[in-house]
Amino acid sequence: MANQHEQTCPVAAAVNVFGDKWSLIVLREAFYGSTRFKEFQENGGMARNILTDRLNHLVKEEILRKVDIGITGKRYAYKLTEKGKALYPIVAACNVWANKYVYGRGNETIKIANRKSGSELKEVKIFTKDGKTMTYRDSMVKVGKGADEVSKARWAKTA
Amino acid sequence: MANQHEQTCPVAAAVNVFGDKWSLIVLREAFYGSTRFKEFQENGGMARNILTDRLNHLVKEEILRKVDIGITGKRYAYKLTEKGKALYPIVAACNVWANKYVYGRGNETIKIANRKSGSELKEVKIFTKDGKTMTYRDSMVKVGKGADEVSKARWAKTA
Repeated sequence: MANQHEQTCPVAAAVNVFGDKWSLIVLREAFYGSTRFKEFQENGGMARNILTDRLNHLVKEEILRKVDIGITGKRYAYKLTEKGKALYPIVAACNVWANKYVYGRGNETIKIANRKSGSELKEVKIFTKDGKTMTYRDSMVKVGKGADEVSKARWAKTA
Repeated sequence: MANQHEQTCPVAAAVNVFGDKWSLIVLREAFYGSTRFKEFQENGGMARNILTDRLNHLVKEEILRKVDIGITGKRYAYKLTEKGKALYPIVAACNVWANKYVYGRGNETIKIANRKSGSELKEVKIFTKDGKTMTYRDSMVKVGKGADEVSKARWAKTA
């Protein structure tokens, strides 16, 4: 996971976390309840060396915590941090999107539901600070204080 | 972009579209309004050969359409399809997440706002079919008809 993006951009920051073939699969497994190396490997279907690399990467990015749960000897569990759990809307958005556009209605693969009500995932909505929903058509970019000079120059007219 | 995931899983399907270092950056640029090769290259900051590969990949995945806009000679524009536009909640979720957990309050980089009201993006919420919001804590997996036998066996008890 060397050679990270350096642009000051939230999408680039997200790509630095899961912009590869396996990190989002590992993250999915964490959301499905996997905590042990063997669980990630069996359910994720990746080679040991790839899984080791991605788990270390996600620990370094503070998405997972590596916890020693050994009583006699070392045994590790990988648990989602708050920063990691906050990625759930991305997984949910992937679920909605792929079931609709890749698999299609009636041919859904993995569905997500509320375990209390049983009601299935329908959509992911974007909310602005005024409590209203927003779509892509209404969107514009504003630069924040953390943006670099390149971004500030690019978006100056809408700042 | 060879060697795609074959698991019947919405996350794997999404990874097949943007599970690499550059596809989501190209997609971001499409959402920011880039349509021409030169715009993607200048704003995305990738090498020509990488951009060519990722644009072709996103066209193949039906996320972008390649449109000949030449009057005298060939000139191409890349435009988001409906399937591509439907990925916007993922970009929005990346924005919310990274501005909060990577850059931090007051140090946001690129912010998204409603261009009519000016109100800034606050959160991305997950809705179930009964119209209620859901979080990770309430979630469970259900297998759909399109899932393969491995997935059906794995999730049999919650189907």
